[in-house]
Amino acid sequence: MATQPHGEQPQLPIPGVQHLIAVGSGKGGVGKTTVAVNLAVALAGLGYKAGLLDADVYGPNVPLMMGIQETPHAVDDIIQPLEQYGVRLMSMGFLSPGDKPLVWRGPMLHSVIQQFLRRVNWGELDYLIIDLPPGTGDVQLSLIQTASISGAIVVTTPSDVSLEDARKAVNMFGQVRVPILGMVENMSYLTCPHCHERIDVFSTGGGRRTAEQMGVYFLGELALDPAVRIGGDSGNPITLKDSGDPHAAAYFQMARDVVRRVAEVGQESGPSIEVTD
Amino acid sequence: MATQPHGEQPQLPIPGVQHLIAVGSGKGGVGKTTVAVNLAVALAGLGYKAGLLDADVYGPNVPLMMGIQETPHAVDDIIQPLEQYGVRLMSMGFLSPGDKPLVWRGPMLHSVIQQFLRRVNWGELDYLIIDLPPGTGDVQLSLIQTASISGAIVVTTPSDVSLEDARKAVNMFGQVRVPILGMVENMSYLTCPHCHERIDVFSTGGGRRTAEQMGVYFLGELALDPAVRIGGDSGNPITLKDSGDPHAAAYFQMARDVVRRVAEVGQESGPSIEVTD
Repeated sequence: MATQPHGEQPQLPIPGVQHLIAVGSGKGGVGKTTVAVNLAVALAGLGYKAGLLDADVYGPNVPLMMGIQETPHAVDDIIQPLEQYGVRLMSMGFLSPGDKPLVWRGPMLHSVIQQFLRRVNWGELDYLIIDLPPGTGDVQLSLIQTASISGAIVVTTPSDVSLEDARKAVNMFGQVRVPILGMVENMSYLTCPHCHERIDVFSTGGGRRTAEQMGVYFLGELALDPAVRIGGDSGNPITLKDSGDPHAAAYFQMARDVVRRVAEVGQESGPSIEVTD
Repeated sequence: MATQPHGEQPQLPIPGVQHLIAVGSGKGGVGKTTVAVNLAVALAGLGYKAGLLDADVYGPNVPLMMGIQETPHAVDDIIQPLEQYGVRLMSMGFLSPGDKPLVWRGPMLHSVIQQFLRRVNWGELDYLIIDLPPGTGDVQLSLIQTASISGAIVVTTPSDVSLEDARKAVNMFGQVRVPILGMVENMSYLTCPHCHERIDVFSTGGGRRTAEQMGVYFLGELALDPAVRIGGDSGNPITLKDSGDPHAAAYFQMARDVVRRVAEVGQESGPSIEVTD
């Protein structure tokens, strides 16, 4: 079980939750939810108490990817999270299943996400992963301004279009002083299942290069592989496989890296005194 | 040049613009902007007067994909659109270039998009393509409720996660009575550049199946191909190539199909009398 490596924690915003980790992206469709789901399952697999808050209220894909579709119960106005694969879960998809789009205005949205943070009985958690909506809009800003986030992960693909938006996401977190745990290059390359040659579908290397240019940590490359996508589409995240599977192994490595980075940025930032020059 | 196939048009909301076509998706990263850009360039290539409004104000990728980054001029408070490859263009990316994220609240966003529609000197256009923000949020709803949209294209990949969100997008357009011109399955398959075998990276066939289930027209499959992505990343859309290129040919075919579908749904819907049963 994880112990707290440093004594001087800022006041925790959610009782019992040690660390909030935001997973964001400048652009949708880069695998943000895939990373959030597999990170949460890997953390649980490593023995940490993990939760996953699906804050992508317009496109909540966590229920499908985690293979669970039930209605959570409320006890005394507090929602009980669901649990799957050892991960406590909350998603708008549990409350409004089906194909009907939720077309909510900003203030309602803000209220829902606050309730997901504050009115859910998360219990004791080492890590609560927040799958942010893609982009750098006001929902993201509201959420990260009102919660004490330990750090953020920015997911990108190596394509220039995705990197352009990833830089915006890094800058958004910087503006609100949330430390970046690292950047992940997802869909980094594809190995042809027929001839086993490598195909750089979305280019390659741009994640590492952009991370270096922006002075943020690089959490590594994750392959574009049908097995990972099938895992998501079927509700069986690839990280349920043991570490003999190369894709699962990459996620477990990333999860260990994230744990180390959370401790590092906690020590770097120390007490929340603002230094201006 | 395109002529109007039917006389009884509803009042046009933007003087001189014959048809507004919205390109949306339930989820980001499925190639919505790639489809919008190549559709606009293909329409221009077919001899139509085409414009492209990048309404994805948080992640405006049109400037990068169209290879143009200039500041538009305003004359008497009316913004002059830029022009590239025969397509008139407006994007937040022209007004706020660089990596700084725009973290705007909903009402400001609404106002900006309205200005892009009403305060831009679009001139005479046969088709104005609107690249919507991904998803089914309030920005999308505001825009399609306040503009007289001839029809919408929904872009998806064949993955279940993307299809789940695409169904929401189809239902969103249905709720506000915007006819669906068709659904496009993008990233449908990849041909290995080494062994030329077909790889169904994101599964396959789900776009056509979902379109049939929902009773919407299927506009076809577009391959996942590095050449298309490189075209976008380098500002040279694949549709600048002649129709000998198979990817360009697929887009030109889709553009012709869209022109036909706009005429069809215009006749289907006729005068805007609401029929209830």
